[in-house]
Amino acid sequence: MPTYLTQHQNRFLEELLDWLRIPSVSADPKFHGDVLRAADFIKDRLLEAGATLVELCPTAGNPIVYGEYMAGPDRPTVLVYGHYDVQPADPYELWTSPPFEPVIKNEKIYARGACDDKGQVYMHVKALEMMLRDGGLGAPCNIKFMFEGEEEIGSDNLGIFVKANKEKLQADVILISDTGILANDVPSIEVGLRGLSYHEVEVTGPNRDLHSGLYGGAVMNPINALCDMISSLHDENRHITIPGFYDNVADLGPAERAELAQAPFSAEAFTQSIGLPAAVGEAGYTTPERTSIRPTLDVNGIWGGYTGEGAKTVIASKAYAKISMR
Amino acid sequence: MPTYLTQHQNRFLEELLDWLRIPSVSADPKFHGDVLRAADFIKDRLLEAGATLVELCPTAGNPIVYGEYMAGPDRPTVLVYGHYDVQPADPYELWTSPPFEPVIKNEKIYARGACDDKGQVYMHVKALEMMLRDGGLGAPCNIKFMFEGEEEIGSDNLGIFVKANKEKLQADVILISDTGILANDVPSIEVGLRGLSYHEVEVTGPNRDLHSGLYGGAVMNPINALCDMISSLHDENRHITIPGFYDNVADLGPAERAELAQAPFSAEAFTQSIGLPAAVGEAGYTTPERTSIRPTLDVNGIWGGYTGEGAKTVIASKAYAKISMR
Repeated sequence: MPTYLTQHQNRFLEELLDWLRIPSVSADPKFHGDVLRAADFIKDRLLEAGATLVELCPTAGNPIVYGEYMAGPDRPTVLVYGHYDVQPADPYELWTSPPFEPVIKNEKIYARGACDDKGQVYMHVKALEMMLRDGGLGAPCNIKFMFEGEEEIGSDNLGIFVKANKEKLQADVILISDTGILANDVPSIEVGLRGLSYHEVEVTGPNRDLHSGLYGGAVMNPINALCDMISSLHDENRHITIPGFYDNVADLGPAERAELAQAPFSAEAFTQSIGLPAAVGEAGYTTPERTSIRPTLDVNGIWGGYTGEGAKTVIASKAYAKISMR
Repeated sequence: MPTYLTQHQNRFLEELLDWLRIPSVSADPKFHGDVLRAADFIKDRLLEAGATLVELCPTAGNPIVYGEYMAGPDRPTVLVYGHYDVQPADPYELWTSPPFEPVIKNEKIYARGACDDKGQVYMHVKALEMMLRDGGLGAPCNIKFMFEGEEEIGSDNLGIFVKANKEKLQADVILISDTGILANDVPSIEVGLRGLSYHEVEVTGPNRDLHSGLYGGAVMNPINALCDMISSLHDENRHITIPGFYDNVADLGPAERAELAQAPFSAEAFTQSIGLPAAVGEAGYTTPERTSIRPTLDVNGIWGGYTGEGAKTVIASKAYAKISMR
């Protein structure tokens, strides 16, 4: 390990843990202040690392942190992308340690955002610091950083920012460390990612909650109706039935699929790690294909009616679901 | 109105409102003390009314309040049934006044339990008081009262109590005021009621919540699976598909159905009162048939995954539903 890293390892770690302590949950407005704090935090780290220009760029939503170090006009340019926002941490009761109080076990850091995406963002910033600070060899290329705060909620403002800042963001290579690897000992390069379409569905039935003894059987129950709708979105081959859904999906040819099949993927390790007897999905495709080249539809949340202790024989007036398509 | 009722109207009303203030929700253990208070309350009112024997009979669950006034061995006996427990009141935010703080608007009392079933139970107790107290004409028959505290959670202990107290409960007529009427100006006598089977379903998938971007498409999502299961419980005619479900259901003949059709039921008033454009249900049956002689299956509650603000792209480890069949 380069001397600089060994010398500063403790400080690096403490800084990262401090960043992980900020609950920058972009989905929930009550964490808005924390989201802004997380942006400020990484802006300051970029400045300390030696970036020559660092800006907190406002958007209609959360700010984008832009930073750069220009080694020279003749050098190639790398644009590093990352995000400082995190997914909601609930249900909290399933965490074995609090999500925003990082703990280290077996050399792994456990905290919300540790590997999505604060850890990776931090690594890139510290790489810059190592290159530029005392004894560093200097940057071999121009490096630009663009860290957004809305990745977990659909990146609504990123496209607008990118279009408005074409020149500034110009680069030869874009480097994104916000994906997975096939296994801890299999370095992996992703060449494409699925997008995301996220929807909240509200089904309204009767104008108030009804007693299922008096009304059951004679009115369409919104929860039952919602389940019918959701169920109808897949056919028996787990093929999505929404008209036109696959229209713009590129169908990979045999050669490309053969190449994908060569990746060292272990079906057994996959199912074992998530505690399922078998992987399932769209007929005619392998597990790696199902999670990469094929679009999907998942219900990410559902609620309606009585969800407390014991029994309540209510026909709920409304039912809700959060549905994502990738 | 008999003089006694006019003279004591205010006291009667205040007493009833006090009873309605007790949140005797049998489904939720946190209200257990209130359930017992509601039983004590109606026991005391029976004693005050002039019942000659009043007992709080323990069961494996909530006690049954038994009371009697015997007019003479040659008189017929009426057994009045009722219950002092109420349904859970949530979601609280849909109440225009707090469920356990009764308010009177247009001569109607609004409170949880006002018409299911504390109001009706109270009416019978006060009828006894009117017959027996000063100036009353006396009871023309023997009257027994049996008020349970588990009607809203399936009456698990009522059958046991009834079998163990055959002699005590012997009666010529059983009077239950815990049903509906066709309209406020149509006195109605129910001759039968559907029972209730209530189940909580838990679907377990992966051993932890998964990221839908990394796993979506390759594992069965427990919420989607639950929706598939629920949807498969009805066919396209809203007929329930569970094998054997209809085995013991009596199919009424044309004569009985014709008689049922004579009840002054207004389809328009029915749909208007619940704000729906149309009633729907099992093909081949009328609305009154669907809510009376035909069994039903309703989801009374469903939950799973992320239900907070905004988006979370989680594949939940578990999904739940509360399902009742009548």
